[in-house]
Amino acid sequence: MSTRNRTRGEKGKVYLVGAGPGDPELITVRGLRLLRQAEVVVYDRLIPAALLDEAPAEAERIYVGKRPGCHTISQEAINALLVEKARAGKCVVRLKGGDPFVLGRGGEEALALARAGVPFEVVPGVTSATAVPAFAGIPVTHRGLSTAFAVVTGHRAGDAEDDVDWSVYAQVPTLVILMGMKRARRICQALIAAGRPPHTPAAVISWGTTEAQRAVRTTLARLPDAIKEAKLVSPGILVVGEVAALADVLAWFEPAGKSVELAHHSSGEKRIEGNRRWR
Amino acid sequence: MSTRNRTRGEKGKVYLVGAGPGDPELITVRGLRLLRQAEVVVYDRLIPAALLDEAPAEAERIYVGKRPGCHTISQEAINALLVEKARAGKCVVRLKGGDPFVLGRGGEEALALARAGVPFEVVPGVTSATAVPAFAGIPVTHRGLSTAFAVVTGHRAGDAEDDVDWSVYAQVPTLVILMGMKRARRICQALIAAGRPPHTPAAVISWGTTEAQRAVRTTLARLPDAIKEAKLVSPGILVVGEVAALADVLAWFEPAGKSVELAHHSSGEKRIEGNRRWR
Repeated sequence: MSTRNRTRGEKGKVYLVGAGPGDPELITVRGLRLLRQAEVVVYDRLIPAALLDEAPAEAERIYVGKRPGCHTISQEAINALLVEKARAGKCVVRLKGGDPFVLGRGGEEALALARAGVPFEVVPGVTSATAVPAFAGIPVTHRGLSTAFAVVTGHRAGDAEDDVDWSVYAQVPTLVILMGMKRARRICQALIAAGRPPHTPAAVISWGTTEAQRAVRTTLARLPDAIKEAKLVSPGILVVGEVAALADVLAWFEPAGKSVELAHHSSGEKRIEGNRRWR
Repeated sequence: MSTRNRTRGEKGKVYLVGAGPGDPELITVRGLRLLRQAEVVVYDRLIPAALLDEAPAEAERIYVGKRPGCHTISQEAINALLVEKARAGKCVVRLKGGDPFVLGRGGEEALALARAGVPFEVVPGVTSATAVPAFAGIPVTHRGLSTAFAVVTGHRAGDAEDDVDWSVYAQVPTLVILMGMKRARRICQALIAAGRPPHTPAAVISWGTTEAQRAVRTTLARLPDAIKEAKLVSPGILVVGEVAALADVLAWFEPAGKSVELAHHSSGEKRIEGNRRWR
């Protein structure tokens, strides 16, 4: 491509690269090019495994992801590792799921690099927050339904440290919740308590954009049970808002022959899907 | 890349492809591959011009973007064009700036295709909403500062048709406003009236991720004047929230030797930047 040479991976520099939402082909052209020139790849748990094969065979691959229930490397240790490898003159690719600056602690790594005087570059990625809904046929904005959306983390919902004011997000037309599968019940209860109607269209998408994707279309009130009944597992994304109903018509991705599943509804709620085509 | 053959552009199908935020290398690997197989490319005004050269020489290129002040093709006509070209058996790439489903009316196009029974696929793109702040050194989320962000359109701010409730967004830690340059004064006034402190860190980024990028770091109260004084032009993105102050340390992209400019401040506001490194 006729672009500048900025893509040439430099020695002694760290590239904070977004690996995209799961499908390996959703990395950016620049991200892939830098990965192919990397001398050190420091990677997280949820990056597409196929991408690791794109780094040179001789590149050092360092896993710093969390395994549920296992001892994990601290953020401080990751920061120190990046500084150390760059100071050793290496071209370092820090490969993070989604976008490095969207709930990925990339800002903290950039800050550590800046403070250590290590040159760095951010290579934005396709964030799961918009791509995963898109793969379930849900545009986060849609004329007449939503001209705004919010992205929040649900991983502390209900905790003392939960700094998300759910009453604010209850008022946003489209709400995308990352890392909220396990606390879906508390989140949905908080949104309903704050005035969001229980019959608001909602969806849950597990392993979005991958061959393991499973999506369920339901309502805000039914969402926690729908996750349980469909046995959906993390990582997953919750979408709340009128746009979720568009999945009924727009779902196009068929990882295993099925694009979006319909949650089992009580008769009272079933009619919400009544007039829509289900594919 | 060792992925399935889903990327092979099919005849009689429309690919809604996100071109990314401006830098041509920020298109996805899949998006570029499909573009290189396209028989028809239907494109908008703000896509990176270099990308058009990537389509086959014989591909039909159809411009459907708006030129300020000129007669433009309607959304209905664009929808009809996509249906027509796909029905003629063409492999159609609909190339849209940023992400097709983030304030890009991609949902309307997908709906028209679904209703016409035309197969389509969404190829998400890197959205300007997160990538443009990142290129100015601003992570939209950052531990201790913001665990959530909202993206809104400012293009109708203050109008009778403005359906954005600014009092809600005044309460979101990080607010990203697209298409808000021209109405920045109304937007900032609305946010301050809703209780957002006037000294809240803010930034404006014009032509983000491109060689023409210019970014100014300021405060919510000063933002409208800062745009005027720096003579920033559309397209531009406004960022409001504590994370905007991180640009003072994290700005890394230097399109013309200068990463982020400091807005002229009255003595009372100047101290906000006091303790930060300016690069």
